[in-house]
Amino acid sequence: MAGSFAKKFAGRRVLITGGAGFIGARLARRLVGLGAEVTLVDSLIPEYGGNLRNLAGIERKVRLNISDVRDAHSLPCFIQGQHVLFNLAGQTSHLDSMNDPQTDLEINTRAQLSILEACRRHNPRIRIVFASTRQIYGRPRYLPVDEKHPLQPVDVNGINKLAGESYHLLYHEVHGIRSCVLRLTNTIGPGMRVKDARQTFLGVWLRCLVEGRPFEVWGGRQIRDFTYVDDAVEAFLLAAVSPAAAGRVFNLGGCERIGLRELADLLVEVNGGGRYVTRSYPTERRKIDIGDFYADGGLIERTLGWRPRTRLRPALARTLAYYRRELRHYL
Amino acid sequence: MAGSFAKKFAGRRVLITGGAGFIGARLARRLVGLGAEVTLVDSLIPEYGGNLRNLAGIERKVRLNISDVRDAHSLPCFIQGQHVLFNLAGQTSHLDSMNDPQTDLEINTRAQLSILEACRRHNPRIRIVFASTRQIYGRPRYLPVDEKHPLQPVDVNGINKLAGESYHLLYHEVHGIRSCVLRLTNTIGPGMRVKDARQTFLGVWLRCLVEGRPFEVWGGRQIRDFTYVDDAVEAFLLAAVSPAAAGRVFNLGGCERIGLRELADLLVEVNGGGRYVTRSYPTERRKIDIGDFYADGGLIERTLGWRPRTRLRPALARTLAYYRRELRHYL
Repeated sequence: MAGSFAKKFAGRRVLITGGAGFIGARLARRLVGLGAEVTLVDSLIPEYGGNLRNLAGIERKVRLNISDVRDAHSLPCFIQGQHVLFNLAGQTSHLDSMNDPQTDLEINTRAQLSILEACRRHNPRIRIVFASTRQIYGRPRYLPVDEKHPLQPVDVNGINKLAGESYHLLYHEVHGIRSCVLRLTNTIGPGMRVKDARQTFLGVWLRCLVEGRPFEVWGGRQIRDFTYVDDAVEAFLLAAVSPAAAGRVFNLGGCERIGLRELADLLVEVNGGGRYVTRSYPTERRKIDIGDFYADGGLIERTLGWRPRTRLRPALARTLAYYRRELRHYL
Repeated sequence: MAGSFAKKFAGRRVLITGGAGFIGARLARRLVGLGAEVTLVDSLIPEYGGNLRNLAGIERKVRLNISDVRDAHSLPCFIQGQHVLFNLAGQTSHLDSMNDPQTDLEINTRAQLSILEACRRHNPRIRIVFASTRQIYGRPRYLPVDEKHPLQPVDVNGINKLAGESYHLLYHEVHGIRSCVLRLTNTIGPGMRVKDARQTFLGVWLRCLVEGRPFEVWGGRQIRDFTYVDDAVEAFLLAAVSPAAAGRVFNLGGCERIGLRELADLLVEVNGGGRYVTRSYPTERRKIDIGDFYADGGLIERTLGWRPRTRLRPALARTLAYYRRELRHYL
């Protein structure tokens, strides 16, 4: 597949919003390796996922433009001439979305409409892959959750991301923009946010372990699935080059589903030591908690041939190894 | 029921956004009659539904404030001290939402979040009834459409209204704001927009008939249902006073379902003459057309005891009579 990707991406102009973020930068690194001409747009706002350290070694091989997707005026100039847009810029914190819903709306909804309008007006032939989220399903009514599961988000972030996703599908349906939506579950790997829980609780766990402090497990019985970042990157590339992907929505799943307590044990084991304490799930978060979640990834496997390949143990091991070396750049 | 409404609304402070609009003004008139203290917020933008003529005779009995719900700064001062908010301000044109999606977003989504935030911060005990739309269902997968039907809007208006509706339900779920959502189908009656098809195609039909010109029926086989405005007003009042309504979503249906061609014949008959021509459905609109639609109104009947009472023939007759007299104020 690497060989065929090289054919598809060599010399192609690719734009990544959220390009200094966890997944965006990993995708950029891969695309540089494939010979693409990569432009990154990132606001580098400290509360979000962008971190220049994620671009270490490829700084001179990409064009990094520090700007915000909320600035609709600058978008046309980025979008013109691009072959592919990987649209990953987003506000990811569920709790932040409840405390400051308007900011979440501006980024996850209004900016998405601006991006799509810029594509429609200035580059209708572009291909788009949009990073959506399992959050739009809300509390699972059955497991694993497939793409037909009702969409009933339990927080502002989910509502706004759903609107953002819906625009992408509508612009395909009505305006013929070739967009594809990937609904991500927890994605983990080198470059993830570990400073706080704004991307995933697992980030804070990793940070505590590396710093030799006990981490906190809230509840502990919730079940989750995890996609390793390189697997997610593979899915983005596939979605961009597969004609069958246009106008479609796909879940990304993980190799395993695991309870949080069990995950904590595995993490301690992989780390060769460490401690955690369990706390009851905080009341103020319970109202926006989705309970157990794991995705049915069958549709993307049948349609695009993608499935997660990295099991949880090596995923955690690689991520831990990275932050043992790099933690100071992420605090 | 009128008697019990008087008990519930006499002396109560009520705010209506979109209060000079078709349904909002009719609701205001009813509330004035019930002895409520009524404040109206309306932007009176010519392309939308607000028309001072809708307030003829009650101008001095309501407080009309000309402002736009997009102005988040003025909202807290309106919302403080109100017992009930009937939240009807909206952009209703599907076609406009495709041509100017950002404006639709500002009104139908961002302003709704501002309104709810103002309620949460300044008046968390308020009751809200939100005017949603059947448009959020998209193309019906089965008929009649009940509230469990999947939500897959086919235009920007539907996506944005869905987000606006979802905020209302979320603010009930998480913040305890007592909001209720009514999903309206075509509403007709005195005060509806007849200048163009921005509220419903039927408006233009009425105008043409009154002006003695033939009207155009596009397609003609689509099936629709219609709620008479006074029935809709009754549903808004009930939703505001029924404890069982909080956090719930209800369809409003109509007494009859009817094909457009048949409707055109009925309208000509009720008018005692007139002509129409049929045209094939315009291509550029087909992509955002929802096909046949009629609502299952069983849930609100079982839960709140509301059902449409005005049949289509008298609804059309009263509306025609109104515009024979009043048309010049609506052009």
